[in-house]
Amino acid sequence: MSYLGVGVSPGTVPVYHSTNLKALDRRVRIVELVLRCVILGLGLLAAVLVATDTQVKEIFSIQKKAKFTDMEALVFLVIANALVAGYSSIQALRCVLSMVRGSVLFSKPLAWVIFSGDQVMAYMTVAAVAAAAQSAAIAKLGQPELQWIKICNIYGKFCNQVGEGIASALVVSISMVVLSCISAFSLFRLYGGTNKTKSAGW
Amino acid sequence: MSYLGVGVSPGTVPVYHSTNLKALDRRVRIVELVLRCVILGLGLLAAVLVATDTQVKEIFSIQKKAKFTDMEALVFLVIANALVAGYSSIQALRCVLSMVRGSVLFSKPLAWVIFSGDQVMAYMTVAAVAAAAQSAAIAKLGQPELQWIKICNIYGKFCNQVGEGIASALVVSISMVVLSCISAFSLFRLYGGTNKTKSAGW
Repeated sequence: MSYLGVGVSPGTVPVYHSTNLKALDRRVRIVELVLRCVILGLGLLAAVLVATDTQVKEIFSIQKKAKFTDMEALVFLVIANALVAGYSSIQALRCVLSMVRGSVLFSKPLAWVIFSGDQVMAYMTVAAVAAAAQSAAIAKLGQPELQWIKICNIYGKFCNQVGEGIASALVVSISMVVLSCISAFSLFRLYGGTNKTKSAGW
Repeated sequence: MSYLGVGVSPGTVPVYHSTNLKALDRRVRIVELVLRCVILGLGLLAAVLVATDTQVKEIFSIQKKAKFTDMEALVFLVIANALVAGYSSIQALRCVLSMVRGSVLFSKPLAWVIFSGDQVMAYMTVAAVAAAAQSAAIAKLGQPELQWIKICNIYGKFCNQVGEGIASALVVSISMVVLSCISAFSLFRLYGGTNKTKSAGW
């Protein structure tokens, strides 16, 4: 029985002998790989869409240029999505390697690293989308009580492209949330003790 | 061995006989109870601080009143913190009951309910803090490129109280993140199979 590592060294892991269990493990790995590839692709797309977005308008014969650095929330969105894309490329490579090896063994230290990384990335991407969505809402609708004007009336094309970037980043953050649940499962099942079982109610 | 519930009914759970393991379980429960009480108290404080915050200023002989409903992000913050405080009061009660009973038994359906609830609350509170912090940053620093003025120069007392509310909500969201890890541990250890162990590298 291993519970909180009591009596078991940190590198000690369970071995599953049943073919059914191996097949289930393989299915979990495939879902993980697909999600990591989705995050890699859409994270890059979100970062590029927002970072390359500019629009020039002439207002009272003065040229004004809208760019993503005008809003801190968009800078945060670009950095967060570039980071999560880079992180996912490394994790996807690890997934492929472990699938090629066909191994269902899992070490606790590696499981902790993946769990921690996924947690940080999940909360970071959710925070980035929330902050960017809030800025986008002000840009689209304005905040009349505070004299914050709608800028999407002026920079329509700029706002649309930012909207596409935020939509892409939203899919990235949802995928990261699902992945963080998968990595929590992969880690904490290593701490289970099931030699004896007993039925219990709620 | 139980992995993804194979061969074990959903209500079947492990029993830990060792006194050491029971003591560890008790310690985890105490941390959980403390965190749920912190969230209950600070979640209520954040909601009350922001929801009761108003300031009236006379600008060019016109009376202007700042209130939290002027910013959607603050409305979201109040709702999210009120919800998480209510949720935590129920969960704290459950913690106390299970500690009084002294039971370390845990059912899978209940573990899934707690895990799902904690995940939703953790991501919701993080998103609420991120959106409110973004609005507060614009209010404090302005966004000159977009002609969004600093309103904290006008409504200083209002901004300070909102700041205290956001700080309180930040502690709530960090506590919820830690709690969501604890409930993930409580759930997924039930899926562990540790009859045979073997050392593995990274």
